[in-house]
Amino acid sequence: MTLMDGKSLRDELLQKYKEKIEKESLAIRLDIITVGEDAASEVYVRNKVKYATEVGIEVITHKLANSVGEKDIIELIDELNSNDKVTGIILQSPIPEGLDFKKCAGRIAHHKDIDGFTLYNIGNLYLGRESLVPCTVKGIMILLEHYKIDLKGKNVTVVGRSEIVGKPLTLALINRDATVTVCHSKTRDLVEHTKNADIVISAVGKKGVITEDMVADGFVGIDVGINRIEGKLYGDFDFEGVASKASFITPVPGGVGPMTVAMIIDNLIIAKTMKR
Amino acid sequence: MTLMDGKSLRDELLQKYKEKIEKESLAIRLDIITVGEDAASEVYVRNKVKYATEVGIEVITHKLANSVGEKDIIELIDELNSNDKVTGIILQSPIPEGLDFKKCAGRIAHHKDIDGFTLYNIGNLYLGRESLVPCTVKGIMILLEHYKIDLKGKNVTVVGRSEIVGKPLTLALINRDATVTVCHSKTRDLVEHTKNADIVISAVGKKGVITEDMVADGFVGIDVGINRIEGKLYGDFDFEGVASKASFITPVPGGVGPMTVAMIIDNLIIAKTMKR
Repeated sequence: MTLMDGKSLRDELLQKYKEKIEKESLAIRLDIITVGEDAASEVYVRNKVKYATEVGIEVITHKLANSVGEKDIIELIDELNSNDKVTGIILQSPIPEGLDFKKCAGRIAHHKDIDGFTLYNIGNLYLGRESLVPCTVKGIMILLEHYKIDLKGKNVTVVGRSEIVGKPLTLALINRDATVTVCHSKTRDLVEHTKNADIVISAVGKKGVITEDMVADGFVGIDVGINRIEGKLYGDFDFEGVASKASFITPVPGGVGPMTVAMIIDNLIIAKTMKR
Repeated sequence: MTLMDGKSLRDELLQKYKEKIEKESLAIRLDIITVGEDAASEVYVRNKVKYATEVGIEVITHKLANSVGEKDIIELIDELNSNDKVTGIILQSPIPEGLDFKKCAGRIAHHKDIDGFTLYNIGNLYLGRESLVPCTVKGIMILLEHYKIDLKGKNVTVVGRSEIVGKPLTLALINRDATVTVCHSKTRDLVEHTKNADIVISAVGKKGVITEDMVADGFVGIDVGINRIEGKLYGDFDFEGVASKASFITPVPGGVGPMTVAMIIDNLIIAKTMKR
């Protein structure tokens, strides 16, 4: 069994990005907007700032109060959209209840949409013209590539159908000639689909929902779940059992998570250098 | 075995649309653009004109010569986009080689995009906010609904991953809580996936590729294939054998095809009455 080490690959990639940014003197600026307070997302933002800064990217964080309205967020986004110094914009999720995240994030200019959530970038993914692809999806693709796991003709079961992971992942996998099955909370017999898969990608967000009896011998397991319980992180895989049957598997933490952060930098470089 | 009669349902729906258009005095105009000559698409256009006219929709056909450039097509689309009298625009596929269909069709204003192919409308389908959904997909959904075939938790295998049918179908099915498997030319073992399905939807475009031995007893079969051989129409299903195992099945012709035409009218009414 090979552990897919997202952390090492992240560090390797960051080094490459750093060299590229220096060598080509790329003046990249990332603007992150947060609204209100959220403990988990504070950690995420801190990480984004840390790694972006390390590779030579300027990061500006805009902390909006809990009390702002959609209008204020959109005004700020419009301002950043038209500011030529700004390469990329991230609206950090979640934003306070009552505010429409999709509407606000959808306002980000598509060439500055580092998360790849705008209709334009999703549409391009759909059309097989990938450019700014959602970071988690891209991280998984690069991780699979790194470990030389071919997707062509493979049975891949995706568990979860969110707009951030499950759905864009499905499109990216179809683009790479995989046979994709999308499962979710309404799936009648999940085991039947996970057991039949060469590759299982779980993005449920429930500790240990994928167990040893649900997977095939020699399967490849990608765990997108990040479940924080009493300060500790757990994935969707019941790790020890599942790992005993895997040929390749990602740990949590240290698998997909670090790749996602690296892909933010990747997307920023694409945004900076893309033809428009 | 119940034959799913798309022709009767189409006629029923057209009658309903006609009454609605009359009653609400909806002044709907559809502009169809064709470029060059294509025997098959002439038949399609003739059909669209026929049914739209019958329900009280004005249709204007713009026949562009084989020799026009993308610039000419886009100029015409821009003109129609800004003409308030125009409710919907269809760029009939195919257009001559060397011209970029996606680019030209992508120019259609999203609120006049009757085929539902623009990034905006695909993006909305992706987000589960369905409005102008590709007509074939919508036709299949309405047909299934009409025959009270519930999708929730069902195993649905889609054969084909085109941007016109397979991909939007997958999104629409996920939106309706189906467990969806997308198969295509690179799928290793198609039988395994069709045999395991409660519902098989085939959009391959090859006569008789789905055979009796590939489906489960009591399955529901939707045949999107339209294969014209020596003047006769055939579906993807090897019909007699497949039908012998089906609980419900669409014939070709007379199944999905007629529904697609009806959905053009449905989308035109939506385009006319949608809030913007």
